[in-house]
Amino acid sequence: MCDVCGCEDNNVIKETKVIDVKQSLLKANESAAISNKLHFDEKGILTVNLISSPGSGKTTLLEKTLDALKNDISMGVLEGDIETEIDAERIRRKGIPAVQITTGGACHLDAPLIHKGFHALEHQLDGKKLDILFIENVGNLVCPSFFNIGEHIRIVLVSVPEGPDKPLKYPKAFKTSQVFIITKSDLLPYFDFDVEKVKEDALSINPFLNVFVLSAKTGEGLEEWFDFVKEKNI
Amino acid sequence: MCDVCGCEDNNVIKETKVIDVKQSLLKANESAAISNKLHFDEKGILTVNLISSPGSGKTTLLEKTLDALKNDISMGVLEGDIETEIDAERIRRKGIPAVQITTGGACHLDAPLIHKGFHALEHQLDGKKLDILFIENVGNLVCPSFFNIGEHIRIVLVSVPEGPDKPLKYPKAFKTSQVFIITKSDLLPYFDFDVEKVKEDALSINPFLNVFVLSAKTGEGLEEWFDFVKEKNI
Repeated sequence: MCDVCGCEDNNVIKETKVIDVKQSLLKANESAAISNKLHFDEKGILTVNLISSPGSGKTTLLEKTLDALKNDISMGVLEGDIETEIDAERIRRKGIPAVQITTGGACHLDAPLIHKGFHALEHQLDGKKLDILFIENVGNLVCPSFFNIGEHIRIVLVSVPEGPDKPLKYPKAFKTSQVFIITKSDLLPYFDFDVEKVKEDALSINPFLNVFVLSAKTGEGLEEWFDFVKEKNI
Repeated sequence: MCDVCGCEDNNVIKETKVIDVKQSLLKANESAAISNKLHFDEKGILTVNLISSPGSGKTTLLEKTLDALKNDISMGVLEGDIETEIDAERIRRKGIPAVQITTGGACHLDAPLIHKGFHALEHQLDGKKLDILFIENVGNLVCPSFFNIGEHIRIVLVSVPEGPDKPLKYPKAFKTSQVFIITKSDLLPYFDFDVEKVKEDALSINPFLNVFVLSAKTGEGLEEWFDFVKEKNI
């Protein structure tokens, strides 16, 4: 028993209430996500949702991908961040239409935000058809994995400097993704990061993951990744 | 207007409702946080809450700190993670009492969880007094910054490989902290990370931040950090 407040259990936030609220939010999100997917399917746009910790290299990988494929594939980007237009500006410098969604505090993108962001992006397109819409989620390995935004492919990224324990510590992101990308592979010599063990851990959570190991700096693994994107863009 | 659903604004999650619920959760958390702080003050324990992205090096810095100071200061650790006991096991290997709080999905530690975790830790202490309680929050640069857990000092950490844009992109963590630590400084030669600019950005958000730049690998900056901990432990 606690000797200050005398309680046995001071869990003041009633768990059932929290769960109820969460489920109602997720349900509202789910119906917006279904609507988003209808949009994307109708317009023939493949949508790809990138989820990772801050600084895993999502924007850098996007920049490389846009450079490599922009002559063959029509691409657009929605950039999620809590604050700043930094990432959308980086993408626009590549000549690719991009909309920054700043959540103003929220830790993830939800389906209604994607709906709004997508319509804002359409204004930049002037009727041009998109083949692929990349959505860079808020840098957060936790919350975005709970929110279906109507995407076709979800990708979880982990950079080598983050360490090898991420699949086991953040299983939800791995369970709900189709692709797992290990980034910054050029840094492997400097870190205790056993790629085979990390792959094994990730596949133990989700055996259907397509795994890529790459470095945007040296180019290692990028060709395989580009081929995968081209193959999915049918 | 949207040509699938015909809506002007499909923001199905009613913002006011979400804000109400959030505020009620934060209010409940706040009262538990005050109770926690009363505990800590009464017992003369300095509590330190570490917040960062996954893989910024919180546990490694703790390991170094415990090794350096354990002969002079009585320390304990609460480890927050979504899954696994990995981090608490790392701390216990140093001979330091540690309790793992696994949130089972939640993206942050809240005050009631700390209350429970602290009482569990007391069972390991056998009446021994603690001087400092380190609390390693769930790896997440967003949500933990919204939750006061009754700590005396909040520390935000960013590792060099995460990139220099983190203070501007995640201002809340910087606004609510007293200390900012840049970790993995040994990697500065490999990254485009201007330490002075990052410090400046952080201080533009919160001019009262104590800033440390260190590497747990080479030892750079660790002595200044240890001195700070010793000085705060009065």
